[in-house]
Amino acid sequence: MSWKDECGVFGVFQAPEAAQLCYLGLYALQHRGQESAGIVSFDREGQFYVVKETGLVSEIFNDNNLKYLAGESAIGHVRYSTSGGSTKFNIQPLYSKTSKGKIALAHNGNLTNAYYLYHQLKNEGAIFQSTSDSEIVLHLIARSRQEDVVEAVAESLRQIEGAYSMVILGEGYMLAARDPQGFRPLVLGLFEGAYVVASETCALDLIGADYVREIEAGEMVKIDASGIQSSRIFPNDLPQKKAYCVFEHIYFARPDSVVFGEHVHDVRKEFGRVLAREHPISADLVMAIPDSGNSAALGYAEESGIRFDFGMTRNHYVGRTFIQPSQNIRNFSVKVKLNPIKNVLKDRRVIVVDDSIVRGTTSRERVTAIRKAGAKEVHVRISCPPITDPCYFGIDTPQKDKLIGSSRNVEEIKNYIGADSLGFLSISGMLDAIKSIQPDHFCTGCFTGKYPIEVKDNGKFSIDQQDFNYYIA
Amino acid sequence: MSWKDECGVFGVFQAPEAAQLCYLGLYALQHRGQESAGIVSFDREGQFYVVKETGLVSEIFNDNNLKYLAGESAIGHVRYSTSGGSTKFNIQPLYSKTSKGKIALAHNGNLTNAYYLYHQLKNEGAIFQSTSDSEIVLHLIARSRQEDVVEAVAESLRQIEGAYSMVILGEGYMLAARDPQGFRPLVLGLFEGAYVVASETCALDLIGADYVREIEAGEMVKIDASGIQSSRIFPNDLPQKKAYCVFEHIYFARPDSVVFGEHVHDVRKEFGRVLAREHPISADLVMAIPDSGNSAALGYAEESGIRFDFGMTRNHYVGRTFIQPSQNIRNFSVKVKLNPIKNVLKDRRVIVVDDSIVRGTTSRERVTAIRKAGAKEVHVRISCPPITDPCYFGIDTPQKDKLIGSSRNVEEIKNYIGADSLGFLSISGMLDAIKSIQPDHFCTGCFTGKYPIEVKDNGKFSIDQQDFNYYIA
Amino acid sequence: MSWKDECGVFGVFQAPEAAQLCYLGLYALQHRGQESAGIVSFDREGQFYVVKETGLVSEIFNDNNLKYLAGESAIGHVRYSTSGGSTKFNIQPLYSKTSKGKIALAHNGNLTNAYYLYHQLKNEGAIFQSTSDSEIVLHLIARSRQEDVVEAVAESLRQIEGAYSMVILGEGYMLAARDPQGFRPLVLGLFEGAYVVASETCALDLIGADYVREIEAGEMVKIDASGIQSSRIFPNDLPQKKAYCVFEHIYFARPDSVVFGEHVHDVRKEFGRVLAREHPISADLVMAIPDSGNSAALGYAEESGIRFDFGMTRNHYVGRTFIQPSQNIRNFSVKVKLNPIKNVLKDRRVIVVDDSIVRGTTSRERVTAIRKAGAKEVHVRISCPPITDPCYFGIDTPQKDKLIGSSRNVEEIKNYIGADSLGFLSISGMLDAIKSIQPDHFCTGCFTGKYPIEVKDNGKFSIDQQDFNYYIA
Amino acid sequence: MSWKDECGVFGVFQAPEAAQLCYLGLYALQHRGQESAGIVSFDREGQFYVVKETGLVSEIFNDNNLKYLAGESAIGHVRYSTSGGSTKFNIQPLYSKTSKGKIALAHNGNLTNAYYLYHQLKNEGAIFQSTSDSEIVLHLIARSRQEDVVEAVAESLRQIEGAYSMVILGEGYMLAARDPQGFRPLVLGLFEGAYVVASETCALDLIGADYVREIEAGEMVKIDASGIQSSRIFPNDLPQKKAYCVFEHIYFARPDSVVFGEHVHDVRKEFGRVLAREHPISADLVMAIPDSGNSAALGYAEESGIRFDFGMTRNHYVGRTFIQPSQNIRNFSVKVKLNPIKNVLKDRRVIVVDDSIVRGTTSRERVTAIRKAGAKEVHVRISCPPITDPCYFGIDTPQKDKLIGSSRNVEEIKNYIGADSLGFLSISGMLDAIKSIQPDHFCTGCFTGKYPIEVKDNGKFSIDQQDFNYYIA
Repeated sequence: MSWKDECGVFGVFQAPEAAQLCYLGLYALQHRGQESAGIVSFDREGQFYVVKETGLVSEIFNDNNLKYLAGESAIGHVRYSTSGGSTKFNIQPLYSKTSKGKIALAHNGNLTNAYYLYHQLKNEGAIFQSTSDSEIVLHLIARSRQEDVVEAVAESLRQIEGAYSMVILGEGYMLAARDPQGFRPLVLGLFEGAYVVASETCALDLIGADYVREIEAGEMVKIDASGIQSSRIFPNDLPQKKAYCVFEHIYFARPDSVVFGEHVHDVRKEFGRVLAREHPISADLVMAIPDSGNSAALGYAEESGIRFDFGMTRNHYVGRTFIQPSQNIRNFSVKVKLNPIKNVLKDRRVIVVDDSIVRGTTSRERVTAIRKAGAKEVHVRISCPPITDPCYFGIDTPQKDKLIGSSRNVEEIKNYIGADSLGFLSISGMLDAIKSIQPDHFCTGCFTGKYPIEVKDNGKFSIDQQDFNYYIA
Repeated sequence: MSWKDECGVFGVFQAPEAAQLCYLGLYALQHRGQESAGIVSFDREGQFYVVKETGLVSEIFNDNNLKYLAGESAIGHVRYSTSGGSTKFNIQPLYSKTSKGKIALAHNGNLTNAYYLYHQLKNEGAIFQSTSDSEIVLHLIARSRQEDVVEAVAESLRQIEGAYSMVILGEGYMLAARDPQGFRPLVLGLFEGAYVVASETCALDLIGADYVREIEAGEMVKIDASGIQSSRIFPNDLPQKKAYCVFEHIYFARPDSVVFGEHVHDVRKEFGRVLAREHPISADLVMAIPDSGNSAALGYAEESGIRFDFGMTRNHYVGRTFIQPSQNIRNFSVKVKLNPIKNVLKDRRVIVVDDSIVRGTTSRERVTAIRKAGAKEVHVRISCPPITDPCYFGIDTPQKDKLIGSSRNVEEIKNYIGADSLGFLSISGMLDAIKSIQPDHFCTGCFTGKYPIEVKDNGKFSIDQQDFNYYIA
Repeated sequence: MSWKDECGVFGVFQAPEAAQLCYLGLYALQHRGQESAGIVSFDREGQFYVVKETGLVSEIFNDNNLKYLAGESAIGHVRYSTSGGSTKFNIQPLYSKTSKGKIALAHNGNLTNAYYLYHQLKNEGAIFQSTSDSEIVLHLIARSRQEDVVEAVAESLRQIEGAYSMVILGEGYMLAARDPQGFRPLVLGLFEGAYVVASETCALDLIGADYVREIEAGEMVKIDASGIQSSRIFPNDLPQKKAYCVFEHIYFARPDSVVFGEHVHDVRKEFGRVLAREHPISADLVMAIPDSGNSAALGYAEESGIRFDFGMTRNHYVGRTFIQPSQNIRNFSVKVKLNPIKNVLKDRRVIVVDDSIVRGTTSRERVTAIRKAGAKEVHVRISCPPITDPCYFGIDTPQKDKLIGSSRNVEEIKNYIGADSLGFLSISGMLDAIKSIQPDHFCTGCFTGKYPIEVKDNGKFSIDQQDFNYYIA
Repeated sequence: MSWKDECGVFGVFQAPEAAQLCYLGLYALQHRGQESAGIVSFDREGQFYVVKETGLVSEIFNDNNLKYLAGESAIGHVRYSTSGGSTKFNIQPLYSKTSKGKIALAHNGNLTNAYYLYHQLKNEGAIFQSTSDSEIVLHLIARSRQEDVVEAVAESLRQIEGAYSMVILGEGYMLAARDPQGFRPLVLGLFEGAYVVASETCALDLIGADYVREIEAGEMVKIDASGIQSSRIFPNDLPQKKAYCVFEHIYFARPDSVVFGEHVHDVRKEFGRVLAREHPISADLVMAIPDSGNSAALGYAEESGIRFDFGMTRNHYVGRTFIQPSQNIRNFSVKVKLNPIKNVLKDRRVIVVDDSIVRGTTSRERVTAIRKAGAKEVHVRISCPPITDPCYFGIDTPQKDKLIGSSRNVEEIKNYIGADSLGFLSISGMLDAIKSIQPDHFCTGCFTGKYPIEVKDNGKFSIDQQDFNYYIA
């Protein structure tokens, strides 16, 4: 699986060592974005503090800058750029002084009417200093005629379309909001009396916070000295269909998280079980592409009765860059991260469970490596349907023509990756596996091209924004 | 002299290797700001490129990022923060997308009605992401109803008050503007057919550009493919008094620059001559506090007929930080940078020429060091009048109560620094020394407290802005 | 498991891009030492090139310094200090000019008569610039009266005692040697006609080299332009008992490696199976402490018939340092790396398979974390016997009194870690599990205190060496 | 002047904050070597601490590593490589454990029989881990049969030839030694009761130590708890001619230092006076190439009665590297560091005083730049004779054929650099100017090719050592 991750957000209100808790939360959410990270804190004197940088959480934060981040409230963000280039100005949380006071904002998701709003705001005199669609939200809030900041934020959110799980830190309050379709997860926790919000429950687990509930789709929560208060972004909205991102369960979320109310590891095992029923085959063993295929592979093994084994080992010391040898070494790029365990595979008929196929190139290399290691048959099973269309809701996918599922059928993909057989989980099988949520409450746009909301200007904002970049040494 | 420097700007339009030339220009202007630097370039495809960082020009720029700065036009900035904290967001040039297209802006100076404009703009919905008063100018341009960008900029400049020598790079043009009082220098040059603007002529010298003329006070110059075009910011303004910063000649500018049409080294020598006439004394030698006192000391020596000698040597390898020993070493902080040459001073009556006295502490240490080195008498001569009031026009001065000249008379200052005698250049002596410029065309606010334009809100903007800061690792 | 790793060595003779291959080899061996790494190369002009630094292989090497490492032959080393402090002078390969020509040396292991030799050599006039016992070997070679370098090396090796798997690069030849007991692994491979030596076969796999055979215990191999030549370090030695380090199979080696002729993953699974027979218990599931317990846990599950599941997930982004929060967060240090998957554990009776227990503190935290996650019963199974004694042969173990197995029996350890039951693999069960090697050919010193060779001066060398250190910024 | 500097040494025995004092001493000696620096300290527990790195003193040392350098005694070194490549292993002080105990050594100078000793020692079994001739001294000490360390060091020094001003820190003592010819300076000072040694007195001045006297040529001083003890390296040596390096006075030493008992600034002024008498010319002004020509230029002006002025200004922010523009900018490399002050030079007949001419290229660029700035006539005066031969005693000079003085006469050099006239100080004029020292007590090898001691193997050591290098990232 090679989709780039998206983003993760975290916030804590009025707890001792808020920035430190935020740092821990981001540490647990690092899998959601490895390009940059930031924390903004707020103290009782009304002062805000900002630390943002490119790099991993473990690289950016240190004793000095965590100490600098004074105050009892803080929000944080980890990022992989989905919209906008890799400019340093895009690193979140964004911070700004506005007519509604000082505001810091951390956003996971992607707006689908950003291009329209950007031009409208620019024509009205707004200046854009980043290439992030999140800056639009700040402008809308600043320009709102609503005096009350909650009203102003709600009014602003009613103008944007798309996916957002958002945390805002203002002067004496924290807001958490989630779009009406609920594309991205956002949960509420409680840490020694202080409210915490996070993209995933694994962040609550690390700091020892209790899971309270999800921030609901379409809900905005305000936390301040007087407690917590919930409201609807669209006050009169009727119960409507959700558009939860099923890919959170397929790949993004950590297996120990609870996402959309479901345990991720359990869902993935169930995907594996359904996959075993949909695409059974006679074989000697089931293996995973570690670690993202682990849960589904185990489910497949349990359902099929074929034993599970570790067919590949993972190098835990792979850095961000790798210097390629000029000479041609077979299956090199696969083996840097994952090496087949030969004696497990030799002369065996192997079922290989992976989470997804995007371009097909990585899968092909892995199948080749497994075969070279001695496997007699290689049967690939994918715990999601073929990906046919890009995502406009917060995942950095290749363009449609780069997606192997957009132009080839299963047989052709099988031939391309060199597998003896190939089986994808069906859409219905996938959706039925998540028992507590109705199938039509998921966004399956990347498998069907049918998006839950209209994508304006063909998602043009991010392309337009390439006209400016900021050098990152 | 311990005033912090201010800023320097540079711009070049349609020359090969524009960013490289800009880098050289900033290199020559480094004495005007050592905290951070940046370059924005623009290429024929309409793309802008930004490199900004804290540090010296020689530390920030390298082959990789200069190569990244593609295009034939570029503007640059070196900075010591005068208004706003040391946040990374304040590093200039500022860059923004606006209703008038993309705009990069580099500004030397300080606005005196920033606080008012900031609140007005914020109330109108503008968001402020830096703590720099220069961001205000971007907002004004973006909000102007004028369709033409030159008109929009002019309209914006008519709303701001204070000191500005400014370079703007837009889509296909470069603007250079200087406030009607002309506080800060700004010159026009020509490099192999391409127009260049710079804070000082020393930047032109380094790249081998020819000096054309000053950008005049109140003038705005537009350079584009069709050539150069001059206009007045206030089209109907009458000839009025200028307010050139005399401190440029006293201390800031490099001695090899031509500032306000006068050669800096010559002016400083003349300061020294006048000083010799105003405060003669019998002595064995005249020495300078190197290097800023060199020219005036030589002038004093020539006028007085007392021989000049080098009484202190400068350590060329002093880094930005210095680890203080915990034990008490006499005159340590002076000697790190400047060590007395004992045999020159021993048993001599010494006239020490320095450029200015701010707090008095450094002068006191130097006098002590010179005396300890054996000088029999130490006569201090200062090539400017006593500083009594802060600057609001682009120099980072201490508050009034920290200025020794605000509360002590010359006799008291002499006693404080421990000199045998002390003489300051008189205001009239100073102004008369610059022969080609009428005395009332200089700002002497820091010596008189009488500022050429009203300072609104007591220069409150920079204080207000301290409420937000950005950690610099 | 918290024993610090030891070292890994790699060498390649006369292959294009030798340094690049060496870099890849070290990449695959990174698990054997994460403190520092180095490569020395040799070109046809007789020039040696050295790159050594603290840090991970991915951090140290880049295009520039790999390009600098010219030549067709190279040796490399990854290190965790076992003897000597963390001084930069200890980073290997060591390089020196000697009476036998220029020599670079990379050493995995630990000498047990180092203290004696060090004093003898020092008294004879040798100077020691590092605190590494490997420097002793260079001195012995330099002082040998043997004219031939192979003879000189053999003579030197006959004077040292203890564990060594060593690669030496000289002017036109490469030597690989392994101590007569064969404590540490060392294998020979072939890459497109060029000989390669490596600590583990996983390094051969990454570059696509073929595995030829082990360098035998007591063997020295010389590779030069005329081919490969094997000799015995002790020419007349009789077949004797080996002392293979069983911990290589328990923990150190990568599961995809072949060590001492046995597949590591297979051996670990067999450890798990024997463990299941020796310490059966009724439970709902078997889980591993990932990833080091994975293979044994799967073996235990297969043998016991109790299903395997993933009970903990690993954070792949844990950096080298972690800023501890001052507030007390439950089981924090465990959860940073490994978080329990609650729904797997809740109300379940869980068998937890780990590779070893050293001090017991980490195990206790893990048991607590698993129990807090909801497990009804926690049964710990360790795939090796209790560790009672330190290692003197290349592993950085705590002193005997810090080893929980040295002072507490199994019941006491069980109580300390808070498990419902605890079972260790027996020594005989462990040794019998490795079928192709006779039980008495393993070193089991850390489980029995009975070492295969005498440890002189109580392993004093490394303690003595602490008197000098080199600051690592 | 473009000769590379050599080295500087500093040592302090039993003073509080010894490492901190050492750091200050090196700070003041930075002009003697900018490539790398190091400090070794020694505490009462017999422990040594080492910090060494490439870079400037201000870059290398910080609060952390100065704190790490515990103890009451310390020696330090700044280095520009004269012999040996730029390998990190060559950074001094060298530290080693030997038969005479632990020893750290810092050396300014160059041995002329290094090649011979190196081969002899290597043949006897010594191993060489650096390419510095200073390592030879450690070997000799370690191999000495003398039991007493002072005797052993003296015996070792009697075997080496060439230039050395050396400081050694051992277990409980500090030694300072200077070769019998006394090529390089070395002075003794007293800081609050503790003895201090330094290459130049400016290091004493910075810490506020009193100057006691020079370490004499051929003297070795031992400082320990019982006080200071002086001895002769050759106990029975007769008074002999010294070979003080006259270039210390011409260029190397800081003008505020006392070197060989003479004040450097005074000597340089006298050089200028003699030069004025030897090469008078009618002109409008005398200027220096700053700062190294300052003192001599002032002397020339005083003697000639022609007024002194500042004709060039120095950029204080020039970094170590400078990115060259690809386009041809006139006299660029000169102007980066030194810019002519046009109004001083315009239409004037100018006497330019510089310290020396090595290759001639820099002088040519400067003459051109001064002429382009408007000077009517450019008369170059050099405060030393033409350099015709390389230095083998501690200065990194180009090879003979690169020295313009080796192949061209004064007229030809004048034409090459484009001056209207050129005058060099004569050898006798130079030596007579230093009144307290007899002319034949100076080494004038670089002006005459007649060296005070035989240079063995044509100074081959440093060339031979190029066969090994260590990458500096």
